[in-house]
Amino acid sequence: MFVYKRKVQYHETDRMGISHHSNYVKWTEEARMAFLDYVGAPYENLEEEGIISPVVGLEVEYKKTSTFADRLEISVFVEKYNGVRLNLRYAIRKTGSDEVITTARTRHCFLKNGAVCSLKSCVPQVHAVLKRAAEEYAADSV
Amino acid sequence: MFVYKRKVQYHETDRMGISHHSNYVKWTEEARMAFLDYVGAPYENLEEEGIISPVVGLEVEYKKTSTFADRLEISVFVEKYNGVRLNLRYAIRKTGSDEVITTARTRHCFLKNGAVCSLKSCVPQVHAVLKRAAEEYAADSV
Amino acid sequence: MFVYKRKVQYHETDRMGISHHSNYVKWTEEARMAFLDYVGAPYENLEEEGIISPVVGLEVEYKKTSTFADRLEISVFVEKYNGVRLNLRYAIRKTGSDEVITTARTRHCFLKNGAVCSLKSCVPQVHAVLKRAAEEYAADSV
Amino acid sequence: MFVYKRKVQYHETDRMGISHHSNYVKWTEEARMAFLDYVGAPYENLEEEGIISPVVGLEVEYKKTSTFADRLEISVFVEKYNGVRLNLRYAIRKTGSDEVITTARTRHCFLKNGAVCSLKSCVPQVHAVLKRAAEEYAADSV
Repeated sequence: MFVYKRKVQYHETDRMGISHHSNYVKWTEEARMAFLDYVGAPYENLEEEGIISPVVGLEVEYKKTSTFADRLEISVFVEKYNGVRLNLRYAIRKTGSDEVITTARTRHCFLKNGAVCSLKSCVPQVHAVLKRAAEEYAADSV
Repeated sequence: MFVYKRKVQYHETDRMGISHHSNYVKWTEEARMAFLDYVGAPYENLEEEGIISPVVGLEVEYKKTSTFADRLEISVFVEKYNGVRLNLRYAIRKTGSDEVITTARTRHCFLKNGAVCSLKSCVPQVHAVLKRAAEEYAADSV
Repeated sequence: MFVYKRKVQYHETDRMGISHHSNYVKWTEEARMAFLDYVGAPYENLEEEGIISPVVGLEVEYKKTSTFADRLEISVFVEKYNGVRLNLRYAIRKTGSDEVITTARTRHCFLKNGAVCSLKSCVPQVHAVLKRAAEEYAADSV
Repeated sequence: MFVYKRKVQYHETDRMGISHHSNYVKWTEEARMAFLDYVGAPYENLEEEGIISPVVGLEVEYKKTSTFADRLEISVFVEKYNGVRLNLRYAIRKTGSDEVITTARTRHCFLKNGAVCSLKSCVPQVHAVLKRAAEEYAADSV
């Protein structure tokens, strides 16, 4: 299991006294980038190939709150990867607890020069890395 | 139809050259607050009653991008309101265009002293306002 | 006097119950862009000429706080403009009050292809606009 | 020397391709909180005593840019501490480089129940910790 660790910052809280819900979206991005680094497909390498991977869909379920100084652990799972689409799932817990406080899903495509591209043909070596990662970190293991 | 207008700011773009996807989440909050003002149930009045309304769920579909200096119009619709739960839907267009570039849904509950509260019993006059708004700005009119 | 109006958003507050101090920096950017629009030198036009204008220095004095739902008015003044350097000053008040709650100064240069450029030679018509604006909105009129 | 390490996140870049300048302000906060943890005066402990420490002044000098995936090291120094006022200075470098890309200074006071308080009398043990830290991490050692 891949886990990204993150402390909640003061600037991420709001006047309800909790982490503002928009920050969880940023944290999924941070966890995703760390995951891509970890499996060997850093996002900056994709960018160097002229490929970007925008978010096309996003879902978040907020079950419990977090706040400043909480230490969070974000597990990242691959729900789907076929070279053209990448769907990831995330489970956020506080360090030392098994309770999932937030779950999320992000869906991504890949674009090159503004057009959809398949990593399988554009960057086969990155495709191979992501395909292996998709098996190893499959979402059904959540 | 209620429409919240918003210009995309430079600090909301990322190095892909587009509005970062986390900002759309902030914009739904801004549109929601403006909607509550407009229908006569300002959020700050709820807070003064000791009531908060956290986001419990969030979904965004990113269809087209936006970037700095774009003028956006965010329509707000009520999908569900029963005193205990409020679900809103949002459609984002660029000013002067009919094309919806992003849709979103947020789900909310109401809490008082940390416990779920029904606006119907806690603040009946706010409940009446929101019930009327839910009819007038129903999501099936999207 | 040029004034940019802005409501404080919920997502801009922190758990101290006030607007997080980093947002004032974003607000100076918003006010600066609105000022450039107003005087006839929109930032996006500079970008189209391949020119960017990064912030090289920043100072903020926080005298009073603001919070969610406050309506702010940000006055923008030109402290210095010589084609190569642009220094702006800002005074933030709450609508309906004369009291300045925050002052700020930002300093900018202009870059083209990574090198410092003088607007006087790069884009003389923009230079003329900014020169006139610098006189009309001079900081000594604060 | 105390150093806070931080990777630049994608959501912190703007369409100039660099870290947006407002993020450096957030990073000084993160570094400050980490510094307070490190010297034994965690900010959350101050909050538990009913004390807050708002930023009253801020200065940033942007010398070089940073962008996504850069690893930054933020050194924190105490410029002044007298129980009532705390001024900190920051020097930001990229990991592996001696070049300072950004310097910053933040100035803070301490408030309890809305009034200025002296940590020396309010929380003498925290005062002692900060006094010692002020000596050990004095800014003249920059």
